[in-house]
Amino acid sequence: MTPQQLAAMIDHTLLRPEATCPQIDRLCAQALDHGFCAVCVNPVYVSQAVRRLTGSPVVVASVAGFPLGANTTAAKIEDARQAIDAGAREIDMVLQLGALIAGEKNRVRDDIAAVAEVVRAASPDHVLKVILETAALSPELIALGCRCCAEAQVDFIKTSSGFHPAGGATEQAVRTLKKLATPIKIKAAGGIGDLKTALSMIEAGADRLGMSASVDVILACEALSSRR
Amino acid sequence: MTPQQLAAMIDHTLLRPEATCPQIDRLCAQALDHGFCAVCVNPVYVSQAVRRLTGSPVVVASVAGFPLGANTTAAKIEDARQAIDAGAREIDMVLQLGALIAGEKNRVRDDIAAVAEVVRAASPDHVLKVILETAALSPELIALGCRCCAEAQVDFIKTSSGFHPAGGATEQAVRTLKKLATPIKIKAAGGIGDLKTALSMIEAGADRLGMSASVDVILACEALSSRR
Repeated sequence: MTPQQLAAMIDHTLLRPEATCPQIDRLCAQALDHGFCAVCVNPVYVSQAVRRLTGSPVVVASVAGFPLGANTTAAKIEDARQAIDAGAREIDMVLQLGALIAGEKNRVRDDIAAVAEVVRAASPDHVLKVILETAALSPELIALGCRCCAEAQVDFIKTSSGFHPAGGATEQAVRTLKKLATPIKIKAAGGIGDLKTALSMIEAGADRLGMSASVDVILACEALSSRR
Repeated sequence: MTPQQLAAMIDHTLLRPEATCPQIDRLCAQALDHGFCAVCVNPVYVSQAVRRLTGSPVVVASVAGFPLGANTTAAKIEDARQAIDAGAREIDMVLQLGALIAGEKNRVRDDIAAVAEVVRAASPDHVLKVILETAALSPELIALGCRCCAEAQVDFIKTSSGFHPAGGATEQAVRTLKKLATPIKIKAAGGIGDLKTALSMIEAGADRLGMSASVDVILACEALSSRR
Protein backbone atom coordinates (compact mmCIF):
# COMPACT_ATOMS: atom_id res chain seq x y z
CA MET A 1 0.00 0.00 0.00
CA THR A 2 1.47 3.35 -1.02
CA PRO A 3 1.31 6.40 1.27
CA GLN A 4 -1.12 7.97 -1.22
CA GLN A 5 -3.43 4.98 -1.08
CA LEU A 6 -3.35 4.98 2.71
CA ALA A 7 -3.94 8.75 2.94
CA ALA A 8 -7.00 8.40 0.69
CA MET A 9 -8.56 6.11 3.33
CA ILE A 10 -8.06 8.48 6.28
CA ASP A 11 -10.54 10.86 7.92
CA HIS A 12 -8.09 13.29 9.53
CA THR A 13 -9.87 13.91 12.80
CA LEU A 14 -9.93 16.59 15.50
CA LEU A 15 -12.95 16.23 17.75
CA ARG A 16 -11.45 17.15 21.13
CA PRO A 17 -13.62 19.85 22.69
CA GLU A 18 -10.52 22.00 23.32
CA ALA A 19 -9.82 22.34 19.57
CA THR A 20 -9.39 25.97 18.50
CA CYS A 21 -9.81 27.75 15.13
CA PRO A 22 -6.04 27.80 14.43
CA GLN A 23 -5.88 24.05 15.09
CA ILE A 24 -8.70 23.46 12.61
CA ASP A 25 -6.82 25.52 10.01
CA ARG A 26 -3.76 23.37 10.63
CA LEU A 27 -5.82 20.18 10.34
CA CYS A 28 -7.13 21.34 6.94
CA ALA A 29 -3.64 22.31 5.73
CA GLN A 30 -2.34 18.87 6.72
CA ALA A 31 -5.22 17.19 4.90
CA LEU A 32 -4.38 19.12 1.73
CA ASP A 33 -0.65 18.38 2.08
CA HIS A 34 -1.05 14.66 2.54
CA GLY A 35 -4.16 13.98 0.47
CA PHE A 36 -6.40 12.69 3.22
CA CYS A 37 -9.90 11.66 2.26
CA ALA A 38 -11.61 14.02 4.70
CA VAL A 39 -11.25 16.11 7.80
CA CYS A 40 -13.63 15.22 10.62
CA VAL A 41 -14.52 18.15 12.89
CA ASN A 42 -17.15 19.15 15.41
CA PRO A 43 -20.24 21.00 14.09
CA VAL A 44 -19.01 24.38 15.29
CA TYR A 45 -16.03 24.15 12.89
CA VAL A 46 -17.73 22.89 9.72
CA SER A 47 -18.00 26.31 8.03
CA GLN A 48 -14.36 27.10 8.69
CA ALA A 49 -13.17 23.74 7.36
CA VAL A 50 -15.37 24.06 4.27
CA ARG A 51 -13.88 27.50 3.54
CA ARG A 52 -10.34 26.08 3.79
CA LEU A 53 -11.04 23.03 1.62
CA THR A 54 -13.40 24.28 -1.08
CA GLY A 55 -12.05 23.43 -4.52
CA SER A 56 -9.90 20.59 -3.16
CA PRO A 57 -10.64 16.86 -3.20
CA VAL A 58 -10.68 16.80 0.64
CA VAL A 59 -14.25 16.67 1.96
CA VAL A 60 -15.52 17.79 5.34
CA ALA A 61 -17.10 15.28 7.71
CA SER A 62 -18.89 16.27 10.90
CA VAL A 63 -20.74 14.53 13.71
CA ALA A 64 -24.35 14.25 14.92
CA GLY A 65 -25.46 13.28 18.42
CA PHE A 66 -21.82 13.00 19.29
CA PRO A 67 -20.35 11.29 21.26
CA LEU A 68 -23.18 9.88 23.42
CA GLY A 69 -25.95 9.38 20.87
CA ALA A 70 -28.41 10.05 23.68
CA ASN A 71 -30.05 13.19 22.39
CA THR A 72 -33.29 13.19 20.44
CA THR A 73 -33.66 12.22 16.80
CA ALA A 74 -34.77 15.80 16.08
CA ALA A 75 -31.53 17.12 17.57
CA LYS A 76 -29.45 14.66 15.50
CA ILE A 77 -31.33 15.77 12.40
CA GLU A 78 -30.59 19.39 13.32
CA ASP A 79 -26.89 18.57 13.71
CA ALA A 80 -26.83 16.81 10.33
CA ARG A 81 -28.86 19.39 8.46
CA GLN A 82 -26.81 22.32 9.73
CA ALA A 83 -23.53 20.58 8.92
CA ILE A 84 -24.75 19.74 5.42
CA ASP A 85 -26.05 23.28 4.86
CA ALA A 86 -22.62 24.55 5.88
CA GLY A 87 -20.98 22.28 3.31
CA ALA A 88 -20.22 19.02 5.11
CA ARG A 89 -20.35 15.98 2.81
CA GLU A 90 -20.22 13.26 5.44
CA ILE A 91 -22.04 12.82 8.75
CA ASP A 92 -20.83 10.50 11.51
CA MET A 93 -23.79 9.94 13.83
CA VAL A 94 -23.95 7.95 17.07
CA LEU A 95 -26.82 5.52 17.43
CA GLN A 96 -28.98 5.27 20.57
CA LEU A 97 -26.73 2.99 22.56
CA GLY A 98 -29.14 2.62 25.49
CA ALA A 99 -32.02 1.62 23.22
CA LEU A 100 -29.77 -0.90 21.45
CA ILE A 101 -28.74 -2.42 24.78
CA ALA A 102 -32.40 -2.62 25.78
CA GLY A 103 -33.11 -4.46 22.50
CA GLU A 104 -35.43 -1.72 21.22
CA LYS A 105 -34.61 -2.38 17.60
CA ASN A 106 -37.26 -0.18 16.00
CA ARG A 107 -36.27 2.80 18.09
CA VAL A 108 -32.62 2.41 17.09
CA ARG A 109 -33.44 1.89 13.42
CA ASP A 110 -35.92 4.77 13.19
CA ASP A 111 -33.45 7.18 14.78
CA ILE A 112 -30.82 6.20 12.19
CA ALA A 113 -33.29 6.18 9.29
CA ALA A 114 -34.43 9.73 10.08
CA VAL A 115 -30.88 11.04 9.83
CA ALA A 116 -30.22 8.89 6.76
CA GLU A 117 -33.16 10.55 5.02
CA VAL A 118 -31.66 14.00 5.61
CA VAL A 119 -28.27 12.88 4.31
CA ARG A 120 -29.68 11.13 1.22
CA ALA A 121 -31.88 14.15 0.42
CA ALA A 122 -28.76 16.31 0.19
CA SER A 123 -27.20 14.37 -2.72
CA PRO A 124 -26.21 10.84 -3.72
CA ASP A 125 -22.62 11.79 -2.85
CA HIS A 126 -23.37 12.63 0.77
CA VAL A 127 -22.35 9.90 3.16
CA LEU A 128 -23.78 8.69 6.49
CA LYS A 129 -21.63 6.74 8.94
CA VAL A 130 -23.20 5.23 12.04
CA ILE A 131 -21.11 4.82 15.18
CA LEU A 132 -21.84 1.61 17.10
CA GLU A 133 -19.39 1.88 20.05
CA THR A 134 -18.43 -1.76 19.60
CA ALA A 135 -16.15 -1.88 22.68
CA ALA A 136 -19.23 -1.41 24.88
CA LEU A 137 -21.36 -4.04 23.12
CA SER A 138 -21.69 -7.83 23.12
CA PRO A 139 -21.40 -9.68 19.76
CA GLU A 140 -25.21 -10.10 19.78
CA LEU A 141 -25.77 -6.37 20.22
CA ILE A 142 -23.21 -5.58 17.52
CA ALA A 143 -25.19 -7.87 15.21
CA LEU A 144 -28.44 -6.12 16.16
CA GLY A 145 -26.82 -2.73 15.50
CA CYS A 146 -25.69 -3.93 12.07
CA ARG A 147 -29.24 -5.03 11.22
CA CYS A 148 -30.57 -1.58 12.18
CA CYS A 149 -27.93 0.06 9.97
CA ALA A 150 -28.74 -2.26 7.06
CA GLU A 151 -32.46 -1.53 7.30
CA ALA A 152 -31.76 2.22 7.40
CA GLN A 153 -29.43 1.81 4.37
CA VAL A 154 -26.44 3.68 5.73
CA ASP A 155 -23.12 3.99 3.93
CA PHE A 156 -20.68 3.12 6.72
CA ILE A 157 -20.68 1.50 10.13
CA LYS A 158 -18.02 3.02 12.38
CA THR A 159 -16.59 1.08 15.29
CA SER A 160 -16.27 3.80 17.93
CA SER A 161 -16.63 7.44 18.84
CA GLY A 162 -13.13 7.52 20.29
CA PHE A 163 -14.60 8.99 23.49
CA HIS A 164 -15.95 5.90 25.25
CA PRO A 165 -14.01 4.62 28.27
CA ALA A 166 -14.48 1.01 27.06
CA GLY A 167 -12.08 1.77 24.19
CA GLY A 168 -11.87 2.21 20.44
CA ALA A 169 -11.43 0.06 17.36
CA THR A 170 -10.06 -3.47 17.52
CA GLU A 171 -9.15 -5.82 14.67
CA GLN A 172 -11.73 -8.24 16.03
CA ALA A 173 -14.50 -5.62 15.94
CA VAL A 174 -13.62 -4.65 12.37
CA ARG A 175 -13.63 -8.31 11.27
CA THR A 176 -17.01 -8.85 12.94
CA LEU A 177 -18.54 -5.76 11.32
CA LYS A 178 -17.10 -6.70 7.92
CA LYS A 179 -18.63 -10.16 8.13
CA LEU A 180 -22.02 -8.95 9.37
CA ALA A 181 -22.52 -5.70 7.50
CA THR A 182 -21.10 -6.04 3.97
CA PRO A 183 -21.93 -4.33 1.59
CA ILE A 184 -22.03 -1.49 4.12
CA LYS A 185 -18.50 -0.13 4.42
CA ILE A 186 -16.55 -0.13 7.68
CA LYS A 187 -14.79 2.79 9.33
CA ALA A 188 -12.34 1.93 12.10
CA ALA A 189 -11.83 4.74 14.62
CA GLY A 190 -10.65 5.26 18.17
CA GLY A 191 -7.11 4.66 19.37
CA ILE A 192 -5.47 4.06 15.99
CA GLY A 193 -2.17 5.67 16.90
CA ASP A 194 0.49 4.15 14.64
CA LEU A 195 1.10 2.70 11.17
CA LYS A 196 1.07 -0.92 12.32
CA THR A 197 -2.36 -0.53 13.91
CA ALA A 198 -3.69 1.40 10.90
CA LEU A 199 -2.56 -1.36 8.49
CA SER A 200 -3.97 -4.08 10.73
CA MET A 201 -7.37 -2.38 10.61
CA ILE A 202 -7.27 -2.32 6.80
CA GLU A 203 -6.15 -5.95 6.77
CA ALA A 204 -9.16 -6.74 8.99
CA GLY A 205 -11.49 -5.12 6.46
CA ALA A 206 -11.70 -1.40 7.24
CA ASP A 207 -12.57 0.79 4.25
CA ARG A 208 -11.88 4.04 6.10
CA LEU A 209 -9.82 5.02 9.14
CA GLY A 210 -10.60 7.81 11.59
CA MET A 211 -7.41 9.13 13.18
CA SER A 212 -5.83 12.08 14.89
CA ALA A 213 -2.33 10.63 14.44
CA SER A 214 -2.77 10.68 10.66
CA VAL A 215 0.29 12.78 9.83
CA ASP A 216 2.66 10.63 11.90
CA VAL A 217 1.17 7.51 10.37
CA ILE A 218 1.61 8.79 6.81
CA LEU A 219 5.17 9.92 7.51
CA ALA A 220 5.95 6.44 8.85
CA CYS A 221 4.40 4.92 5.73
CA GLU A 222 6.48 7.19 3.50
CA ALA A 223 9.65 6.30 5.39
CA LEU A 224 8.88 2.61 4.97
CA SER A 225 8.14 3.04 1.23
CA SER A 226 11.37 4.94 0.59
CA ARG A 227 13.41 2.19 2.30
CA ARG A 228 11.98 -0.41 -0.08
CA MET B 1 -26.14 18.50 57.74
CA THR B 2 -29.07 16.07 57.80
CA PRO B 3 -29.54 13.43 55.08
CA GLN B 4 -32.64 15.37 53.97
CA GLN B 5 -30.66 18.60 53.59
CA LEU B 6 -27.94 16.80 51.64
CA ALA B 7 -30.44 15.01 49.38
CA ALA B 8 -32.07 18.35 48.55
CA MET B 9 -28.75 19.52 47.07
CA ILE B 10 -28.23 16.50 44.80
CA ASP B 11 -28.94 16.14 41.08
CA HIS B 12 -29.24 12.35 40.87
CA THR B 13 -27.50 11.74 37.57
CA LEU B 14 -27.43 9.06 34.88
CA LEU B 15 -25.85 10.34 31.69
CA ARG B 16 -23.93 7.25 30.54
CA PRO B 17 -24.87 6.52 26.93
CA GLU B 18 -25.65 2.89 27.84
CA ALA B 19 -28.49 3.93 30.18
CA THR B 20 -31.74 2.09 29.39
CA CYS B 21 -35.41 2.90 30.08
CA PRO B 22 -35.62 0.57 33.12
CA GLN B 23 -32.53 2.26 34.59
CA ILE B 24 -34.14 5.68 34.17
CA ASP B 25 -37.27 4.41 35.96
CA ARG B 26 -35.06 3.20 38.79
CA LEU B 27 -33.25 6.57 38.92
CA CYS B 28 -36.59 8.35 39.27
CA ALA B 29 -37.81 5.95 41.97
CA GLN B 30 -34.60 6.52 43.93
CA ALA B 31 -35.00 10.29 43.61
CA LEU B 32 -38.54 10.05 45.01
CA ASP B 33 -37.43 7.74 47.82
CA HIS B 34 -34.55 9.89 48.98
CA GLY B 35 -35.85 13.37 48.17
CA PHE B 36 -33.18 14.37 45.69
CA CYS B 37 -33.48 17.82 44.17
CA ALA B 38 -33.52 16.59 40.57
CA VAL B 39 -32.73 13.75 38.24
CA CYS B 40 -30.31 14.61 35.45
CA VAL B 41 -30.80 12.57 32.27
CA ASN B 42 -29.93 12.68 28.61
CA PRO B 43 -32.43 14.39 26.25
CA VAL B 44 -33.79 11.10 24.96
CA TYR B 45 -35.09 10.25 28.45
CA VAL B 46 -36.64 13.57 29.50
CA SER B 47 -40.26 12.62 28.64
CA GLN B 48 -39.98 9.36 30.53
CA ALA B 49 -38.50 11.01 33.63
CA VAL B 50 -41.13 13.76 33.55
CA ARG B 51 -43.90 11.12 33.44
CA ARG B 52 -42.43 9.36 36.46
CA LEU B 53 -41.93 12.54 38.52
CA THR B 54 -44.95 14.71 37.69
CA GLY B 55 -46.69 15.81 40.86
CA SER B 56 -43.57 15.28 42.98
CA PRO B 57 -41.06 17.90 44.17
CA VAL B 58 -38.28 16.22 42.13
CA VAL B 59 -37.56 18.17 38.95
CA VAL B 60 -36.03 16.89 35.72
CA ALA B 61 -32.75 18.31 34.48
CA SER B 62 -31.31 17.54 31.04
CA VAL B 63 -28.26 18.52 29.03
CA ALA B 64 -27.52 20.63 25.94
CA GLY B 65 -24.45 20.36 23.73
CA PHE B 66 -23.32 17.58 25.99
CA PRO B 67 -20.59 16.64 26.79
CA LEU B 68 -18.32 18.40 24.26
CA GLY B 69 -20.03 21.78 23.85
CA ALA B 70 -18.71 21.83 20.30
CA ASN B 71 -21.96 21.77 18.38
CA THR B 72 -23.64 24.90 17.11
CA THR B 73 -25.61 27.36 19.21
CA ALA B 74 -28.70 26.46 17.18
CA ALA B 75 -28.27 22.80 18.11
CA LYS B 76 -27.86 23.67 21.80
CA ILE B 77 -31.02 25.77 21.61
CA GLU B 78 -32.79 22.82 20.00
CA ASP B 79 -31.61 20.52 22.81
CA ALA B 80 -32.80 23.01 25.45
CA ARG B 81 -36.11 23.82 23.79
CA GLN B 82 -37.05 20.18 23.27
CA ALA B 83 -36.14 19.26 26.83
CA ILE B 84 -38.18 22.16 28.21
CA ASP B 85 -41.13 21.33 25.95
CA ALA B 86 -40.98 17.78 27.29
CA GLY B 87 -41.10 19.09 30.86
CA ALA B 88 -37.47 19.57 31.94
CA ARG B 89 -37.04 22.39 34.43
CA GLU B 90 -33.26 22.64 34.39
CA ILE B 91 -30.74 22.62 31.52
CA ASP B 92 -27.06 21.83 31.98
CA MET B 93 -25.26 23.15 28.88
CA VAL B 94 -21.58 22.89 27.95
CA LEU B 95 -19.91 26.09 26.81
CA GLN B 96 -17.68 26.30 23.71
CA LEU B 97 -14.47 25.11 25.30
CA GLY B 98 -12.32 25.67 22.19
CA ALA B 99 -13.52 29.25 21.81
CA LEU B 100 -12.84 29.91 25.50
CA ILE B 101 -9.31 28.51 25.16
CA ALA B 102 -8.78 30.73 22.10
CA GLY B 103 -9.93 33.74 24.16
CA GLU B 104 -12.95 34.38 21.95
CA LYS B 105 -15.01 35.83 24.76
CA ASN B 106 -17.92 37.15 22.71
CA ARG B 107 -18.39 33.84 20.95
CA VAL B 108 -18.51 31.99 24.26
CA ARG B 109 -20.86 34.52 25.87
CA ASP B 110 -23.23 34.75 22.91
CA ASP B 111 -23.54 30.95 22.74
CA ILE B 112 -24.49 30.86 26.43
CA ALA B 113 -26.76 33.90 26.20
CA ALA B 114 -28.76 32.36 23.36
CA VAL B 115 -29.54 29.26 25.44
CA ALA B 116 -30.18 31.42 28.53
CA GLU B 117 -32.82 33.31 26.58
CA VAL B 118 -34.67 30.07 25.77
CA VAL B 119 -34.52 28.93 29.40
CA ARG B 120 -35.65 32.30 30.80
CA ALA B 121 -38.50 32.51 28.29
CA ALA B 122 -39.87 29.23 29.66
CA SER B 123 -40.50 30.57 33.20
CA PRO B 124 -38.68 32.32 36.06
CA ASP B 125 -38.38 28.90 37.73
CA HIS B 126 -36.44 27.30 34.90
CA VAL B 127 -32.74 27.03 35.59
CA LEU B 128 -29.65 27.18 33.35
CA LYS B 129 -26.36 25.67 34.47
CA VAL B 130 -23.24 26.18 32.39
CA ILE B 131 -20.52 23.54 32.41
CA LEU B 132 -16.99 24.98 32.32
CA GLU B 133 -14.85 21.79 32.39
CA THR B 134 -12.54 23.36 34.97
CA ALA B 135 -10.06 20.45 35.02
CA ALA B 136 -9.09 21.31 31.44
CA LEU B 137 -8.72 25.07 32.05
CA SER B 138 -6.12 27.42 33.54
CA PRO B 139 -7.21 29.78 36.35
CA GLU B 140 -7.25 32.64 33.82
CA LEU B 141 -9.57 30.74 31.49
CA ILE B 142 -11.83 29.75 34.39
CA ALA B 143 -12.08 33.46 35.24
CA LEU B 144 -12.90 34.31 31.62
CA GLY B 145 -15.56 31.59 31.58
CA CYS B 146 -17.08 33.02 34.76
CA ARG B 147 -17.25 36.50 33.17
CA CYS B 148 -19.07 35.05 30.14
CA CYS B 149 -21.55 33.31 32.46
CA ALA B 150 -22.10 36.48 34.49
CA GLU B 151 -22.78 38.55 31.36
CA ALA B 152 -25.23 35.92 30.11
CA GLN B 153 -26.89 35.90 33.56
CA VAL B 154 -26.96 32.17 34.12
CA ASP B 155 -28.17 30.51 37.33
CA PHE B 156 -25.36 28.04 37.98
CA ILE B 157 -21.79 27.39 36.91
CA LYS B 158 -21.00 23.69 36.93
CA THR B 159 -17.44 22.45 37.30
CA SER B 160 -17.40 19.52 34.88
CA SER B 161 -19.30 17.31 32.48
CA GLY B 162 -18.01 14.17 34.17
CA PHE B 163 -16.86 12.92 30.76
CA HIS B 164 -13.59 14.79 30.28
CA PRO B 165 -10.36 12.80 30.64
CA ALA B 166 -8.77 15.69 32.57
CA GLY B 167 -11.13 14.91 35.47
CA GLY B 168 -14.11 16.23 37.40
CA ALA B 169 -14.78 18.52 40.33
CA THR B 170 -12.09 19.45 42.85
CA GLU B 171 -12.42 21.44 46.06
CA GLN B 172 -10.01 23.97 44.61
CA ALA B 173 -12.14 24.46 41.48
CA VAL B 174 -15.29 24.93 43.56
CA ARG B 175 -13.53 27.48 45.78
CA THR B 176 -12.27 29.37 42.75
CA LEU B 177 -15.71 29.44 41.11
CA LYS B 178 -17.35 30.51 44.38
CA LYS B 179 -14.94 33.40 44.72
CA LEU B 180 -15.20 34.52 41.10
CA ALA B 181 -18.83 33.89 40.26
CA THR B 182 -21.00 34.70 43.30
CA PRO B 183 -23.96 35.43 43.20
CA ILE B 184 -24.13 32.74 40.49
CA LYS B 185 -24.54 29.40 42.24
CA ILE B 186 -22.04 26.57 41.91
CA LYS B 187 -22.72 22.96 40.96
CA ALA B 188 -19.92 20.48 41.62
CA ALA B 189 -20.03 17.41 39.38
CA GLY B 190 -17.73 14.70 38.09
CA GLY B 191 -16.13 12.04 40.25
CA ILE B 192 -18.00 12.78 43.52
CA GLY B 193 -18.17 9.16 44.65
CA ASP B 194 -18.48 9.19 48.45
CA LEU B 195 -19.90 11.16 51.38
CA LYS B 196 -16.58 12.69 52.39
CA THR B 197 -16.02 14.13 48.92
CA ALA B 198 -19.62 15.34 48.71
CA LEU B 199 -19.34 17.19 52.03
CA SER B 200 -15.98 18.68 51.07
CA MET B 201 -17.56 20.14 47.93
CA ILE B 202 -20.30 21.75 50.00
CA GLU B 203 -17.71 23.04 52.46
CA ALA B 204 -15.85 24.57 49.49
CA GLY B 205 -19.00 26.41 48.43
CA ALA B 206 -21.03 24.11 46.18
CA ASP B 207 -24.77 24.85 46.15
CA ARG B 208 -25.63 21.72 44.18
CA LEU B 209 -23.95 18.36 43.58
CA GLY B 210 -24.19 16.22 40.46
CA MET B 211 -23.68 12.55 41.30
CA SER B 212 -24.37 9.02 40.18
CA ALA B 213 -23.37 7.62 43.58
CA SER B 214 -26.15 9.61 45.27
CA VAL B 215 -27.92 6.68 46.93
CA ASP B 216 -24.73 5.30 48.50
CA VAL B 217 -23.80 8.79 49.67
CA ILE B 218 -27.20 9.38 51.29
CA LEU B 219 -27.16 5.95 52.95
CA ALA B 220 -23.71 6.76 54.37
CA CYS B 221 -25.04 10.12 55.60
CA GLU B 222 -28.04 8.42 57.24
CA ALA B 223 -25.77 5.85 58.93
CA LEU B 224 -23.59 8.66 60.27
CA SER B 225 -26.62 10.62 61.53
CA SER B 226 -28.11 7.62 63.31
CA ARG B 227 -24.81 6.97 65.09
CA ARG B 228 -24.82 10.48 66.54
